[in-house]
Amino acid sequence: MIRLPRGTQDILPGDSEKWQYVEQVFVDLCRRYNYQEIRTPIFEHTELFERGVGDTTDIVQKEMYTFTDRGDRSLTLRPEGTASVVRAFVQNKLFGSNQQPQKLFYNGPMFRYERPQQGRMRQFVQLGIEALGSKDPAIDAEVISLAINFYQSLGLKSLRLVINTLGDKESREQHRQALVNHFHPYREELCQDCQLRLDKNPMRVLDCKKDKEHPAMQTAPKILDYLTPEAKDYFEKVTAYLDAVGVEYVIDSNLVRGLDYYNHTAFEIMSAASGFGSITTLSGGGRYNGLVEDLGGPETAGIGFALSVERLLMALEAEDVELPLEQSLDAYVVAIGEKAEAKAFEITQTLRTNGLKADKDYLKKKIKAQFKAADRNQAAYVIVIGENELTNGQVSIKTMTTGEQENIAFDQIVSYIKQKG
Amino acid sequence: MIRLPRGTQDILPGDSEKWQYVEQVFVDLCRRYNYQEIRTPIFEHTELFERGVGDTTDIVQKEMYTFTDRGDRSLTLRPEGTASVVRAFVQNKLFGSNQQPQKLFYNGPMFRYERPQQGRMRQFVQLGIEALGSKDPAIDAEVISLAINFYQSLGLKSLRLVINTLGDKESREQHRQALVNHFHPYREELCQDCQLRLDKNPMRVLDCKKDKEHPAMQTAPKILDYLTPEAKDYFEKVTAYLDAVGVEYVIDSNLVRGLDYYNHTAFEIMSAASGFGSITTLSGGGRYNGLVEDLGGPETAGIGFALSVERLLMALEAEDVELPLEQSLDAYVVAIGEKAEAKAFEITQTLRTNGLKADKDYLKKKIKAQFKAADRNQAAYVIVIGENELTNGQVSIKTMTTGEQENIAFDQIVSYIKQKG
Repeated sequence: MIRLPRGTQDILPGDSEKWQYVEQVFVDLCRRYNYQEIRTPIFEHTELFERGVGDTTDIVQKEMYTFTDRGDRSLTLRPEGTASVVRAFVQNKLFGSNQQPQKLFYNGPMFRYERPQQGRMRQFVQLGIEALGSKDPAIDAEVISLAINFYQSLGLKSLRLVINTLGDKESREQHRQALVNHFHPYREELCQDCQLRLDKNPMRVLDCKKDKEHPAMQTAPKILDYLTPEAKDYFEKVTAYLDAVGVEYVIDSNLVRGLDYYNHTAFEIMSAASGFGSITTLSGGGRYNGLVEDLGGPETAGIGFALSVERLLMALEAEDVELPLEQSLDAYVVAIGEKAEAKAFEITQTLRTNGLKADKDYLKKKIKAQFKAADRNQAAYVIVIGENELTNGQVSIKTMTTGEQENIAFDQIVSYIKQKG
Repeated sequence: MIRLPRGTQDILPGDSEKWQYVEQVFVDLCRRYNYQEIRTPIFEHTELFERGVGDTTDIVQKEMYTFTDRGDRSLTLRPEGTASVVRAFVQNKLFGSNQQPQKLFYNGPMFRYERPQQGRMRQFVQLGIEALGSKDPAIDAEVISLAINFYQSLGLKSLRLVINTLGDKESREQHRQALVNHFHPYREELCQDCQLRLDKNPMRVLDCKKDKEHPAMQTAPKILDYLTPEAKDYFEKVTAYLDAVGVEYVIDSNLVRGLDYYNHTAFEIMSAASGFGSITTLSGGGRYNGLVEDLGGPETAGIGFALSVERLLMALEAEDVELPLEQSLDAYVVAIGEKAEAKAFEITQTLRTNGLKADKDYLKKKIKAQFKAADRNQAAYVIVIGENELTNGQVSIKTMTTGEQENIAFDQIVSYIKQKG
């Protein structure tokens, strides 16, 4: 038997309805916020992620699915969505559209070669948005509030929104130097990755899972103390907008996000639900002014966020949230005897072409088993047709909620059910 | 600038709504027919397709995106959906579910390394269904009618449904020998691929695009003349069911389908729309009894079909079908003066959290440009807030269909719009 590749999963009936539901809620929310869908390819030229995600990141250094195609191109299965969306924005000249900022959403699989564990798959699904072309702090608040509203509208309660600013270029340069000075005496005590980070991207030391208990972490210089007046003002406006629309948050100056391209606003949404396990981050995002230029476009501000559907479903389960899934049939057609089968199929088809959800048996099951199937499919009406009914041109329709049973002519079945509703 | 990989495409706002629409119609139709969604990984172990699609097929021999992952596995981006669904059926023991047959649908990208041309991309999207566990000819008719109903319900008119039977094992063996005998004298006149096919899978010679004008093609032995009584009876029942539910078709004994796993019923749906170009096949499917066993499962009948969304959209365009896309906003909030901006953002947010589609400006545009944006977004209501309105705690709401304008208190905006509808 051939099994699926490690770190991937099949989503089967019974679960797939949950995925459909949360995706539909996301799409509806995006429409309310006037975000429109963009779909980019599953793979891109490897260079895109080296430049767009950052070649010092774990993703690019260790986790990418990179391969050479039959035309000798180096391609990579996308490990995240932002680089691809920005590539599409540049290539398709969306900066020239009269709709600015471009507010885009996406929904699709991403790929990272990591050690699989609960809530961390090699193929996982991200829902995300990107707003390109505005540096109004109100749009930071819009993106953050869309993110938190999404979780709230699904019924999650134990949510925690954490925000920070990473400052502008100048703020980061000052902070960078302060971090290097601060950690220098402890260099040998830090993990190997952090020693490298200290040279290449010291801010990411703050994000290290191995060294997070090291005493020097608590006393590390905070970006908030190195902000330029402009960066400080920007962050204050973002929080003021969040206050104005009633979004609750905490500021955590150690929040840095794993990707190189962020600046100014950064945020994460966590689940504080007990039983959710050690993984508490549901999603995150931030501002990435500069990324569009890095990828060959004109100077353009940008901000976005992405969430993992896998972790969302874990959080819903941890909080025992029951999604309002609708899986019942309108009608199940039971055929008694071989002669009635063709007519039963015809009736089933007529129901379907008239917009009703209907099914019948395809295994020549006995009558009792057919009724069981009707039950299992939560059919609102069970339509029975046997030889007598064939002769009379009628079926017997049972309304399952009331037990009421009536004989109805073939050509009246659809209107009978639609009328009763 | 980094561009997207050859043979792939970005689907941008303006087009993505069409994709959403046709996918939603498909999902709704599947629900009416009681098919449930399954999602399988984007890549699988290469062996799955070698065994499941057939290692003499063009797909496996020439077109697969195969690569080795960091754990030294040979993986392949899925070139089609059936092998993966059957693998999932076997691995997850869906044959043991009390819901039989298992009626499944899928929606997702597939990958084939071919020469890109209109309607043939290296990454393309397939919508498909599989019904596993029934050899009732009624379910062949169900699958075929779902397929054709899908196109019809989108408004396509120039459709042509072509069906054939490939017979059972015995029928195929007889027919195979007859084909070998028939083509033997012309062997050297056939293309190189066909010379190979003649040894490995002679039925596929009938499907050759290069040799289709060869005189021997017209006189080739037809599978219909080699059917066992059982296979003949099965096919007659399928067509009788199609007749009963009013599905029109033509029988083409040269229809063989490119994949190895088909037997009994095979079908294709074509577009006869002028201007659709040389590609006329929209989709196809067929029965594949035996495939579940080939992939390590118990003896299980199966039938399915898959369609390309790219070609569907081409056909819709060729027939000038206008899809009923809904893209307008409920409200656009115009802020006059800097002081009104925060309130405008707040109002926009309130509209959204109350289920309305709303937007505002994030570029500090002048008033006139904000009204233009409201127009461009087809806002039903334009809400204006300036310093006067701020002082009075009111906004001015203009109903764009009538030109009517009213002053409404902040906390009455949502109910005002919802009431007017």
